[in-house]
Amino acid sequence: MNETISTLLDHRSVRSFLDTPVTEEQLQAIVTAGQMASTSSNVQAYSVIAVTEPSLKRQLAILSGDQAYVEQCPLFLVWCADLYRVCRTAGMYLSDQTTYEDSTESFMVATVDTALAAQNAAVAAESMGLGICYIGGIRNRIAEVSELLRIPELAYPVFGMCVGVPDRKSGQRPRLPTEAVLHRNGYDPEMSLEAVKGYDVTMVRYLRERTEGRKSTPWSKIMAEWLARPNRLHMRAFLEDKGLLRK
Amino acid sequence: MNETISTLLDHRSVRSFLDTPVTEEQLQAIVTAGQMASTSSNVQAYSVIAVTEPSLKRQLAILSGDQAYVEQCPLFLVWCADLYRVCRTAGMYLSDQTTYEDSTESFMVATVDTALAAQNAAVAAESMGLGICYIGGIRNRIAEVSELLRIPELAYPVFGMCVGVPDRKSGQRPRLPTEAVLHRNGYDPEMSLEAVKGYDVTMVRYLRERTEGRKSTPWSKIMAEWLARPNRLHMRAFLEDKGLLRK
Repeated sequence: MNETISTLLDHRSVRSFLDTPVTEEQLQAIVTAGQMASTSSNVQAYSVIAVTEPSLKRQLAILSGDQAYVEQCPLFLVWCADLYRVCRTAGMYLSDQTTYEDSTESFMVATVDTALAAQNAAVAAESMGLGICYIGGIRNRIAEVSELLRIPELAYPVFGMCVGVPDRKSGQRPRLPTEAVLHRNGYDPEMSLEAVKGYDVTMVRYLRERTEGRKSTPWSKIMAEWLARPNRLHMRAFLEDKGLLRK
Repeated sequence: MNETISTLLDHRSVRSFLDTPVTEEQLQAIVTAGQMASTSSNVQAYSVIAVTEPSLKRQLAILSGDQAYVEQCPLFLVWCADLYRVCRTAGMYLSDQTTYEDSTESFMVATVDTALAAQNAAVAAESMGLGICYIGGIRNRIAEVSELLRIPELAYPVFGMCVGVPDRKSGQRPRLPTEAVLHRNGYDPEMSLEAVKGYDVTMVRYLRERTEGRKSTPWSKIMAEWLARPNRLHMRAFLEDKGLLRK
């Protein structure tokens, strides 16, 4: 196994950081690595906002559902899907033509571009001994987060990312068995669902160990709770208001 | 610079491959690395279909807009956002409760989960000397691709990925200057748009060199053409039909 694959396999979410700042060189390496990810039609439809100001991090921590590590991490990256830049840039060639930045397809291109860049950035950070944690919680109060960071129309914060030196090595959460996600020459529902069964046992054991016996809910049940939660139902209206996902 | 960051910075899309097959060990390493990417609430809402059957690859090449390398690559991965598995798995705990797999938020979770896993997989492949190319073209005729690969309701193919040994070292496309995508403590539109200007010059030079002078369109103009193209406008209806993105 090579060093890169070892880095990928060693990933764990880090939610507790030392005070050590992330250096400008590290930030540049992280973002430059992010930029080298693939991008659909070279649109590069993302921006990243590096937040280091304590008061901003504090407000973002509250807006993300009181996640203290958003404030505690030395660097909080807000990854935005961004069609604003490309629309403004291309504007001089467009005059009165109809454009499609508000289509579902354009929304997907921008969202996927952002995720690919962010994951490269996460890998780069981890390869330098830093820890990261994705924060989907910034979508809880996405309109307030957008206003706080002055994110313009046609752009939206997809997720945040805590970055910093881990203060301890956290545990690694087991993943589904590979047979649950890998299909051959066609989707195989039976194989996939059969492979999931063992995962319930694995996750019960993992939760018990991690919580000293206090938690032992099977994954399937946790997923049922996730599916039944009316989570972030403001998303559609927010995105349409930003000029996205209208058709 | 460490080996992992060197791998990330050396990325280029590969569209021409040797006949050498991707081994089962390589495929397992690629998918396992993909699975170690972060996932929202541990939903792991993706599947990957490894396509090696020549007739299937041929049909996918045609459905993707006659992209010959989809047929030529030894391994074609189809990355699917997948809420089918989790809904079926959780079903026993749900009976008659309302669930939200059809929300915009759930669609985003599944799409982002898929992209994070795929990018880890791409990095793992490249670290072993393989080349990759993302294929958004599988969304051109997404209903036919889904039928061909028997992708169930609540799942959809986000993109394909050619994988194989490169037959030559292809050129590396320059990215936007970092100042165009990296903002500090708030979105800075002036800085971003100013930084884009030099990129038009960079890309004209790159295109001229690559095409021996035949192409020299500035990036801004290519982007205007992209925005004005009514690209994949079937996406919304297709996704709703699959039970996704309904609210």
